[in-house]
Amino acid sequence: MAKKHRFDEAKFIVEPEKSLDLAKRTSKAGKELVDKQIAMEALAADVTSLQEQQAVLFATKQYSLLIIIQGMDAAGKDGTIRHVMGAINPQGCRVYSFGPPNSTEVKHHFLWRPSPYLPEKGMISLFNRSYYEEVLAVRVHPKFLEPQQIPGLKIDKPKSLEKLWEQRYKEMRTFERALFNNGTLVLKFYLHVSREEQRSRLLERLKDPEKFWKFNPRDLEERKLWKEYTTAFEECMESTSTEEAPWFIIPADDKWYARAAIADIIAARLEKLGLEYPDVTDEQKAEFATYIQQLEHEVE
Amino acid sequence: MAKKHRFDEAKFIVEPEKSLDLAKRTSKAGKELVDKQIAMEALAADVTSLQEQQAVLFATKQYSLLIIIQGMDAAGKDGTIRHVMGAINPQGCRVYSFGPPNSTEVKHHFLWRPSPYLPEKGMISLFNRSYYEEVLAVRVHPKFLEPQQIPGLKIDKPKSLEKLWEQRYKEMRTFERALFNNGTLVLKFYLHVSREEQRSRLLERLKDPEKFWKFNPRDLEERKLWKEYTTAFEECMESTSTEEAPWFIIPADDKWYARAAIADIIAARLEKLGLEYPDVTDEQKAEFATYIQQLEHEVE
Repeated sequence: MAKKHRFDEAKFIVEPEKSLDLAKRTSKAGKELVDKQIAMEALAADVTSLQEQQAVLFATKQYSLLIIIQGMDAAGKDGTIRHVMGAINPQGCRVYSFGPPNSTEVKHHFLWRPSPYLPEKGMISLFNRSYYEEVLAVRVHPKFLEPQQIPGLKIDKPKSLEKLWEQRYKEMRTFERALFNNGTLVLKFYLHVSREEQRSRLLERLKDPEKFWKFNPRDLEERKLWKEYTTAFEECMESTSTEEAPWFIIPADDKWYARAAIADIIAARLEKLGLEYPDVTDEQKAEFATYIQQLEHEVE
Repeated sequence: MAKKHRFDEAKFIVEPEKSLDLAKRTSKAGKELVDKQIAMEALAADVTSLQEQQAVLFATKQYSLLIIIQGMDAAGKDGTIRHVMGAINPQGCRVYSFGPPNSTEVKHHFLWRPSPYLPEKGMISLFNRSYYEEVLAVRVHPKFLEPQQIPGLKIDKPKSLEKLWEQRYKEMRTFERALFNNGTLVLKFYLHVSREEQRSRLLERLKDPEKFWKFNPRDLEERKLWKEYTTAFEECMESTSTEEAPWFIIPADDKWYARAAIADIIAARLEKLGLEYPDVTDEQKAEFATYIQQLEHEVE
């Protein structure tokens, strides 16, 4: 089952408890893939491996996989999901998009919301954005905290907010460790695009009639907060990348590179589980022989 | 957008309120497709159409689609799902498998269970088995009704049971009409296999180590109740095939034929909705021009 992987995940991983500077991480394609053609071949090979791994995951029902995709607006989340997960048996994979929480969700702890969408054993869940928005968009816009009515929180006091983010990082680490202990692989990907690349993608949405519906004037407002978002992402990933649930920073200016890299990392992690189709005992084999006999000599 | 479809859905549909005899429906491939090669090309064309239709459905968020797949054990439900829905953007499609209800579900009305899995606007849900088991498996095994504690029901009295099935048919018709009124297309497919074909597929599961895990000794017990299941399916489809939510009987002895037929019927029904990407008003266009201006002359 051991396959050769083109990508060295160590290059992308966020080391637990080390300080992270996104400016020092490239958003450009690396040399693992010289061009788009090679990338598409690599992606196809990894997607085939993912299909095989998903089938065994589903059959064995011992582990599950939670994939989280985050990134700035227009970082390529939707396309990545379509290309990486699109060929997976839809019976074993579910995608959930996290928009702003609804009026019931804000009345609960922020980790209440994802619960119904966690992958049961044998399944893959992919979160397009996630509960991490609670330390990203919410951190950049603390007013989003108002309806949450958190005891003791002072939204206008930086220290009080700082305490909240630290508390949430810790709660997420604990939450993900519990998932891991119960057999859920948690893999988190940050699609790293440059500000310049975001600009050209937003312009595309404004110029292509089939993409008009994807354009949201708010994206331009959020773009002005690029620095604030960058800081939020950095601190969040520094604090929540753990051995059990690592963050990967994926260069995403070239969509084909990002897709191939993510598919490769997921496939490699699943292969490492060393899953095999459930074995059948000798006793069961004897039973099977009886059933075969029965079916082959059946009287209508 | 009008495409040519190879299959005439009238051939497969169950006419509302007409008596149905499954013995008179063939389980063999029809002449629309002369061989597997042609079928695979037809399937690929329909899958492309489905991908396009799903993208517009998702963008417009006015309609949704509920697909129900039923059939005897080993009728090919899983494979159909993989081949027909496998290439759809996983972000817009969710598959739910209905095994026996859990201990909470049996304490509710049988139409309580599917509610959380119904497709919201823009989405496709596919049910692998469904609430229809409540008039199929449950009808064949009335003892499954015991934990449901239905007032007035006498499980050992055929007349009392008969009344329950009629009541459930009616409740399903009403339920599906309500979905339809709210913009959900409901398409229901019965995969029609012969008893002989089921035998050879069960034997395959017993002989192929990668398929061992799919084999369930209970399938052999259920097989002995073929006649009872056939009657249950006939009466159920007669009573619940409506204009708003039709049943289609798909010949499924040849897997490639069934897959192509189902993809074709779904694609044709979606095309009939005549969906188009949301239009942009002149006012919005003017706004877009400002945004373009803004992005193109941005000062860092």
